[in-house]
Amino acid sequence: MQRILVIIPIVTALFDEEVAREFSAVARPGTEVEVTHLTRGPASIESSYDEALATPEILERVKSAEEQGFSGVVIDCFGDPGVRAARELVRIPVVGAGSPSMLLAAGMGHRFSVVSVLQNVVPILEDIAKLSGVEDKLASVRSVNIPVLDLGDRQGLEGALLREMAIAVEEDGAHVLVLGCTGMMGVAGSLQRALEARFGHFVPVVDPVGASMAHLQGMLAMNTSHSKLTYMDPPQKKRA
Amino acid sequence: MQRILVIIPIVTALFDEEVAREFSAVARPGTEVEVTHLTRGPASIESSYDEALATPEILERVKSAEEQGFSGVVIDCFGDPGVRAARELVRIPVVGAGSPSMLLAAGMGHRFSVVSVLQNVVPILEDIAKLSGVEDKLASVRSVNIPVLDLGDRQGLEGALLREMAIAVEEDGAHVLVLGCTGMMGVAGSLQRALEARFGHFVPVVDPVGASMAHLQGMLAMNTSHSKLTYMDPPQKKRA
Amino acid sequence: MQRILVIIPIVTALFDEEVAREFSAVARPGTEVEVTHLTRGPASIESSYDEALATPEILERVKSAEEQGFSGVVIDCFGDPGVRAARELVRIPVVGAGSPSMLLAAGMGHRFSVVSVLQNVVPILEDIAKLSGVEDKLASVRSVNIPVLDLGDRQGLEGALLREMAIAVEEDGAHVLVLGCTGMMGVAGSLQRALEARFGHFVPVVDPVGASMAHLQGMLAMNTSHSKLTYMDPPQKKRA
Amino acid sequence: MQRILVIIPIVTALFDEEVAREFSAVARPGTEVEVTHLTRGPASIESSYDEALATPEILERVKSAEEQGFSGVVIDCFGDPGVRAARELVRIPVVGAGSPSMLLAAGMGHRFSVVSVLQNVVPILEDIAKLSGVEDKLASVRSVNIPVLDLGDRQGLEGALLREMAIAVEEDGAHVLVLGCTGMMGVAGSLQRALEARFGHFVPVVDPVGASMAHLQGMLAMNTSHSKLTYMDPPQKKRA
Amino acid sequence: MQRILVIIPIVTALFDEEVAREFSAVARPGTEVEVTHLTRGPASIESSYDEALATPEILERVKSAEEQGFSGVVIDCFGDPGVRAARELVRIPVVGAGSPSMLLAAGMGHRFSVVSVLQNVVPILEDIAKLSGVEDKLASVRSVNIPVLDLGDRQGLEGALLREMAIAVEEDGAHVLVLGCTGMMGVAGSLQRALEARFGHFVPVVDPVGASMAHLQGMLAMNTSHSKLTYMDPPQKKRA
Amino acid sequence: MQRILVIIPIVTALFDEEVAREFSAVARPGTEVEVTHLTRGPASIESSYDEALATPEILERVKSAEEQGFSGVVIDCFGDPGVRAARELVRIPVVGAGSPSMLLAAGMGHRFSVVSVLQNVVPILEDIAKLSGVEDKLASVRSVNIPVLDLGDRQGLEGALLREMAIAVEEDGAHVLVLGCTGMMGVAGSLQRALEARFGHFVPVVDPVGASMAHLQGMLAMNTSHSKLTYMDPPQKKRA
Repeated sequence: MQRILVIIPIVTALFDEEVAREFSAVARPGTEVEVTHLTRGPASIESSYDEALATPEILERVKSAEEQGFSGVVIDCFGDPGVRAARELVRIPVVGAGSPSMLLAAGMGHRFSVVSVLQNVVPILEDIAKLSGVEDKLASVRSVNIPVLDLGDRQGLEGALLREMAIAVEEDGAHVLVLGCTGMMGVAGSLQRALEARFGHFVPVVDPVGASMAHLQGMLAMNTSHSKLTYMDPPQKKRA
Repeated sequence: MQRILVIIPIVTALFDEEVAREFSAVARPGTEVEVTHLTRGPASIESSYDEALATPEILERVKSAEEQGFSGVVIDCFGDPGVRAARELVRIPVVGAGSPSMLLAAGMGHRFSVVSVLQNVVPILEDIAKLSGVEDKLASVRSVNIPVLDLGDRQGLEGALLREMAIAVEEDGAHVLVLGCTGMMGVAGSLQRALEARFGHFVPVVDPVGASMAHLQGMLAMNTSHSKLTYMDPPQKKRA
Repeated sequence: MQRILVIIPIVTALFDEEVAREFSAVARPGTEVEVTHLTRGPASIESSYDEALATPEILERVKSAEEQGFSGVVIDCFGDPGVRAARELVRIPVVGAGSPSMLLAAGMGHRFSVVSVLQNVVPILEDIAKLSGVEDKLASVRSVNIPVLDLGDRQGLEGALLREMAIAVEEDGAHVLVLGCTGMMGVAGSLQRALEARFGHFVPVVDPVGASMAHLQGMLAMNTSHSKLTYMDPPQKKRA
Repeated sequence: MQRILVIIPIVTALFDEEVAREFSAVARPGTEVEVTHLTRGPASIESSYDEALATPEILERVKSAEEQGFSGVVIDCFGDPGVRAARELVRIPVVGAGSPSMLLAAGMGHRFSVVSVLQNVVPILEDIAKLSGVEDKLASVRSVNIPVLDLGDRQGLEGALLREMAIAVEEDGAHVLVLGCTGMMGVAGSLQRALEARFGHFVPVVDPVGASMAHLQGMLAMNTSHSKLTYMDPPQKKRA
Repeated sequence: MQRILVIIPIVTALFDEEVAREFSAVARPGTEVEVTHLTRGPASIESSYDEALATPEILERVKSAEEQGFSGVVIDCFGDPGVRAARELVRIPVVGAGSPSMLLAAGMGHRFSVVSVLQNVVPILEDIAKLSGVEDKLASVRSVNIPVLDLGDRQGLEGALLREMAIAVEEDGAHVLVLGCTGMMGVAGSLQRALEARFGHFVPVVDPVGASMAHLQGMLAMNTSHSKLTYMDPPQKKRA
Repeated sequence: MQRILVIIPIVTALFDEEVAREFSAVARPGTEVEVTHLTRGPASIESSYDEALATPEILERVKSAEEQGFSGVVIDCFGDPGVRAARELVRIPVVGAGSPSMLLAAGMGHRFSVVSVLQNVVPILEDIAKLSGVEDKLASVRSVNIPVLDLGDRQGLEGALLREMAIAVEEDGAHVLVLGCTGMMGVAGSLQRALEARFGHFVPVVDPVGASMAHLQGMLAMNTSHSKLTYMDPPQKKRA
């Protein structure tokens, strides 16, 4: 049986339950999903500064997950904080949410757009597309101008997402949409319906929860993991 | 319960059983996998000519799969023959094996190489990387110089694959390897072991069977499908 | 003396005469142009599905053209259906209309836009630009929203083309325009005049008829053809 | 009847006759080809310095060609010296030899290599590929290490070209070869035969003479020319 | 002590004093800046034609600067006229203004836009971005539609620059702005203030004077220069 | 007078003196260079894990440098750890060593290679080239296989660097070389001499010390800094 650890890289228990429910819903039947959050770090991730503060504890948690026998780890943030370093530390597969979502979206249509929270993260997400190798498929990154901690107002969120997604289709040429924050849970389905009503064609909305699990469990089904040629073990040395 | 149709786009029943076994092994528990092959087309696919001959019946089968209530379709060939046209015809998700394998590989390391059957298909697979948007992550496409119908000699195949994969790592800078033909079944695991023994680091080998199922079942888990903005329904007209 | 076969890959004789006239007008003096159309396939090509249905007979015709001593073949459709497979089958040069038009346009100015028939083909033509290597020179692909079989209304067509071409220049930064359907015959000259009147600078309009002949007859003048390293002969095998 | 001026941008009459013969051989029947060379400039072009010295008189000649009623102009050098500025000055089509050769080669196979004279020009020709938009199709630029003025030894030249072309195929992955200097006349045919003998597949060799004429006469057949949006008329002002 | 020669590649003394003052202001303390202009060439540079006319004397001046013991040379024009050829002729470092400005801007933010004088030079500057390798960081090139010789009206210039820069930020996604003509002196500071007032965030404006000196003096501080593998000495030969 | 803080992001005072000497040597006359190192973090930086551990204290130091009135900050490591987050926190210019070195190298020749310490960092440095926008100018990243803390053996280091640099020139096509670790101080000059002796042409070696200072002091000379549109202030929130 697979045991997956989902690390929410922020210092609040606010999202734990919903995250557990959402990940369990897309996981393969029989998967055990365990959710945890940080004790040191930011209340939400909306900048490189937040990512830098969250990363040290993320790395400790990933290391310990491997020792405890977890099959794999999801770092549940669209900015993929700490994923590169975490992959250096362990052999079990580790994924974030941003890169897997973009790679899946790249296979579902001609071009995709990401809609995220604040303007602050737009260049950060564009850089993830570059490093994932799919920048040629990226139509745009847009934001709804709502901070992570205000995403709880689902109706307001859906309205704002639909507005930006419609612009992404009409002006930026997007054919696939990606929810650009892991806090945007439970809205993909109704956005798909609203977009189809508007454009008269089915327009997929990729949910990072589903995309990160598909990437992780795809690796697990093949008994494989990230390459240790890319993510070599850190050399032994003093670290204070 | 999900029902997946796997279409082997060649006119032989030779691979049916093994394909069914391999796909079932990586599918989510509870998935019903049905395998079929063509009655008109080539004995194997090793050229654009073969792809062109196989495509008309592939399209009929995909159309009929949707009518029969299948949840999704895998066109089980690394060259993705007919995938674009098939996606125009139906709303259920359709995947090939090449593009999903490359997109998954792109997320597993810095650069990947594909090792396929004959030199004939090398430019075809490089073009798939371009159209999938991941050409910047493609280190090389190599071939073992063994026709599809001779892949049954597993020992010879593994030796040839290992030789080309080692060159891909050493000369082309590959960090992830991809099996470039869906006829190369059941060899990924032992190749991973051999590569790790040789290079002293874990080097993943992506099996197109697992990658295509991960891509397809990822879409299904999210209740989504390919974009009908990219793959619009073909206009009504006379077709003789 | 050169004998060129022009294959109109649709099941109607409607365009035969005009196509013969247009190709003869741009061919080198002394060229014998023969035009033919299909007996099996779609009434027009506006999707990958149409291309897939047309391709098998295209390939038979190209093969037979070589046997009958034709010097070269034009597959007269902007989507280049069957060109890749046809080049595998024969040694005489084969060209479509899309790729040669884009390559010629790339040499005539900083960036070009293609204006085609329906929105359905836009991603298909963008993919041709990618595979031809000139996507960096592509400003946009636009459509006039007129099906192929309605292109007979030349006045309506010219008006719609001019509108889209003007937007391509003003909003997309196009400096060269390309007619994105081989059914758009006989309109390039008057569009060039209208665009020059509008923008105060000469703006070229590439006609796919002229571009495909220039590419084909360029190869013939040099006694050369497409590379058989790229388009290797399909291996011998059973094809049902 | 078309009158084409071919400007050899060097201060010697050495090549005039052969150039006239070669261009006439590939021109459309009935074309009048006139060849001229410079009175001020370098003895050959093998550096940006040489190009800079040749350009002022090239521009005068192109301007005067338009006034004298020529239909179009070829600047007969693979480095395309002065082409950009010349296109600003006139409305009749002007082509060099490098960019048209690369664009034609891009349409003939998966990837091409250029083989030129000295190492000095390699980065210059790579830059032409970039500006022509086909750098993704460029496998390599190689040199035979023979100065332009020693190209008269045809046997030595053919041997050196064959050696470099074979390396381009085997090591750089070239499928199409391009002669990278307009002084390499009359050798393409026998190189094609030698390459086919060596590789067992037809490997095309693009001759810049044929390619530049195909590009120029393609534009002329369509009554079109380079875009004056890209190559705007230089503003009126004092020029000393 | 460093002696830098600044060549203004136009036939007027109009800018000499201001250029000397501006370059001295950004040079390292103790640098001796000498400014000169041409006796043969255009009154301003606004086309490839102007560049071609200016280049021969630029090359003589650069050659002579090296002989006179100058430490390095700035060719003070955003189009970098003659830089490539000049670097072939000498070993002391030579820079233009365009490429150094773009490279510096690429390091200061996510994407930059250049605002230059006339529409004529837009494709020329886009080509410089391509050849400098930073086209992926280029958001757009815009023009204020003011000829070089009218740049003296500083108030009008600043207003026009601010308008185009605001559009570059809002519509093209620029985060850094670059003054695209070396005649736009002394306005960067007030534009930075105006942009910050407008957007509420600091938006840098790169002045080509400062950027070219930083690039040149950076090389000098490291006792290095441009690569003679890229810019090989021109072969000895007759040049008339 | 400018005061520059150089942060060596490792927990040892070993390099402080030499770093101070090297930076002072390339700084503008009159610059006050202050060097510091960390109290928490790794002994050297050779992995993403090391970067993650070093970053939190780097950010505190940068923030405090701005408060103390420093003019600008160099984070003295080729991997640019914390640069993105640091730029979010402050308004004074902050640079690392990797991106400025690559941007300067891109302006000095056709293609550059980086030679760094261990194979572990090769993909990390290739990603910096991508995010800096100059990957098209990057010939290769190579390593000498010497850990940072063993770089003290200057003779061994120079020999190993020369070997890898020669391969970069001969096999990868590099025209400019970049020292890929800030611990490789004081060797650029003699490497330039050795490379020129070997290749018969001047081949520049970029020292990251000089390149980072040129980038930083270039910004300071222009009274500018990094864009706050790219590096927006982190939103106010709880950070534990």
